[in-house]
Amino acid sequence: MINDFIYDIPVRVYFGRDQLKNLGAELKKYGKRVLLTYGGGSIKRSGLYDRVVEQIKGAGLELFELSGIEPNPRIDSVRKGAQMCKDLKIDVLLAVGGGSTIDATKFMAAGACVDCDPWDFFDREKLTPITRALPLVSILTLAATGSEMDNCGVISNLETQDKYPAGSPAMLPRASFLDPTNTFSVSPYQTACGSADIMSHIIEVYFNTSQDMYMLDCFMEGMMKTVIRYAPVAMREPDNYEARANLMWTSTWAINGFVAAGKRHDWSCHPMEHELSAIYDITHGLGLAILTPRWLEYCLDETTVDKYVQFGVNVFGIDATLAPMEIAHEAIARLSDFLFNQLKLKRTFPEVGIDETHFALMARKAVGGDTINGLKPLRQQDVESIYRMCMK
Amino acid sequence: MINDFIYDIPVRVYFGRDQLKNLGAELKKYGKRVLLTYGGGSIKRSGLYDRVVEQIKGAGLELFELSGIEPNPRIDSVRKGAQMCKDLKIDVLLAVGGGSTIDATKFMAAGACVDCDPWDFFDREKLTPITRALPLVSILTLAATGSEMDNCGVISNLETQDKYPAGSPAMLPRASFLDPTNTFSVSPYQTACGSADIMSHIIEVYFNTSQDMYMLDCFMEGMMKTVIRYAPVAMREPDNYEARANLMWTSTWAINGFVAAGKRHDWSCHPMEHELSAIYDITHGLGLAILTPRWLEYCLDETTVDKYVQFGVNVFGIDATLAPMEIAHEAIARLSDFLFNQLKLKRTFPEVGIDETHFALMARKAVGGDTINGLKPLRQQDVESIYRMCMK
Repeated sequence: MINDFIYDIPVRVYFGRDQLKNLGAELKKYGKRVLLTYGGGSIKRSGLYDRVVEQIKGAGLELFELSGIEPNPRIDSVRKGAQMCKDLKIDVLLAVGGGSTIDATKFMAAGACVDCDPWDFFDREKLTPITRALPLVSILTLAATGSEMDNCGVISNLETQDKYPAGSPAMLPRASFLDPTNTFSVSPYQTACGSADIMSHIIEVYFNTSQDMYMLDCFMEGMMKTVIRYAPVAMREPDNYEARANLMWTSTWAINGFVAAGKRHDWSCHPMEHELSAIYDITHGLGLAILTPRWLEYCLDETTVDKYVQFGVNVFGIDATLAPMEIAHEAIARLSDFLFNQLKLKRTFPEVGIDETHFALMARKAVGGDTINGLKPLRQQDVESIYRMCMK
Repeated sequence: MINDFIYDIPVRVYFGRDQLKNLGAELKKYGKRVLLTYGGGSIKRSGLYDRVVEQIKGAGLELFELSGIEPNPRIDSVRKGAQMCKDLKIDVLLAVGGGSTIDATKFMAAGACVDCDPWDFFDREKLTPITRALPLVSILTLAATGSEMDNCGVISNLETQDKYPAGSPAMLPRASFLDPTNTFSVSPYQTACGSADIMSHIIEVYFNTSQDMYMLDCFMEGMMKTVIRYAPVAMREPDNYEARANLMWTSTWAINGFVAAGKRHDWSCHPMEHELSAIYDITHGLGLAILTPRWLEYCLDETTVDKYVQFGVNVFGIDATLAPMEIAHEAIARLSDFLFNQLKLKRTFPEVGIDETHFALMARKAVGGDTINGLKPLRQQDVESIYRMCMK
């Protein structure tokens, strides 16, 4: 059963080395007062900051700034940015950074249009819908979350130890600037984490037992092959344009909604991971890398094996004449080899400082009090089992 | 070298069986007076016409109609529609049909905004740019041209025996309704022609010797595999939803600009084919099917063979350990088998009533007086040679 869906992603993407020259004109469409948001100082070191400011000034726009947006961005930053938008009468926000900066900026843009606390967008009791947001433009510096072409984001609340996603078409960036050279300075480790994140976005959609549209399965297999091919290249040769361009465009299309068209199943590894990084503040992609192969192992049985076979044969080129279960196990092994040997990511929870202390709490929150309806339905005890599989 | 590009395709697509309920609200966004355009009576026989009218009336909109748009649509229809838009003060156009109807309607929408003759958009001397157009919504009934999500079209002028393309972002449909069940009534022959058209759109982009983005090559290979897998199914089982849905969504993405991102080479088979259908009025997809394998044969040499190998191995699963030239010839043979045996399309010019009479004239016009800069540069004598290869 191929479900009905609406495809509607009106984001203008400026892709390539020589696109920043369009930034001033793009921002000017939305008004005069620009709030530039970013994280640490990396965009100053790389010179990107200066080039952005030059564009903004050159277009005769007024520049305001909010820096210091953290990885796993926090609701406090969102609150601060939303208040600045109100106080300074901001017309358009410009997020320069990776998914954390863009995610946080989306909710500043939405928070600027409401009177309530922005945490109300996430609070499981309130879940205040987002219907309006100020216009947002992004300049991407890390290929990972896909926030540059989707309408959602994830925010952490350290006080309540919560990390929740929220979304709305109102928060879709109006335009995003994707210059692969802006990712040349991303470290091998962050490149690996970003690549694991991209892989996870695809796997969460690809692995389900409802009937798929074959064309989109082919696209997802192509994207996984792209990540597997180029992530190690980008780690070895940080300024390999071909590798960075492929990773960047794949990160965007992995999660902008196109390949998920019409699928209604839950994602599984992301809610399990959000609980890890809410408590341990580890890098999202790293948490996903550890969880994903265990989750695949846990969900493998006679009812799900066909998808594993398709994955193994089409993505890793495993011999299609082998027994289905053999192909499936080999596919998981090949994925683990990619994540832990080629990307050199840590393989277990103890290696990243996670022990069993909070398993019950995290599992309960991951299932949202009930069930994750993904490839296999997961209840609290299933998630706890998967967490335990990550201990060795 | 991966070229810079701008991705900007803000078309809202309503995909699936139960989407027509959104038509009234969608049209209403653009005004009150709707010009409904269509071809022959097939949409009346299928009941689609009644459902569309019901939606328009239900939304309280005023309905005007222009029917009789022909295959290989003609400038006379465009002129008539543009004039109707002016006389009737039309707010939005609704094209219901295949590529011919949607193409013609695009130029009516543009023609409504200018004082000149719409043929001036195409006339090689004038080439009047299209900067404005009335809003356009489409309901697709044939998977082939991709007009539902692109900004261009092709119009014939029987008087001058010309058939030319033109395009402009202003003509991009605001929304398109893609219901695969609306293609259940497409005959096996028209399904075959449409599928050949889709294949050609992909092949025109895929086969070039500049460096590509690997991810997009994977997507194109996936789309070709999708057409090869499902076109014969749709011919055998016209109401196979899975087959029709895959063909429909592939037709759209084959040519909306996404996979061509940044590529600047000319298309080769399309200009060669447009001359055929300008004079002989044959079905576009059929002409492309006859030309494509000959063009691939003609362009195969040591400088181009790598792409043929990639095509043969990734699309047809040909043994990668064979010699490159052997793989290339086998790939062309497999493509011919698909087009002429599985799709059952005619294989030669004589079978479709084309002889050598106009070869010189057609070849001269196809190269636009100079060269087609595609996979291999083609001058007039090259095109004549390819035409001659189609004689047997």
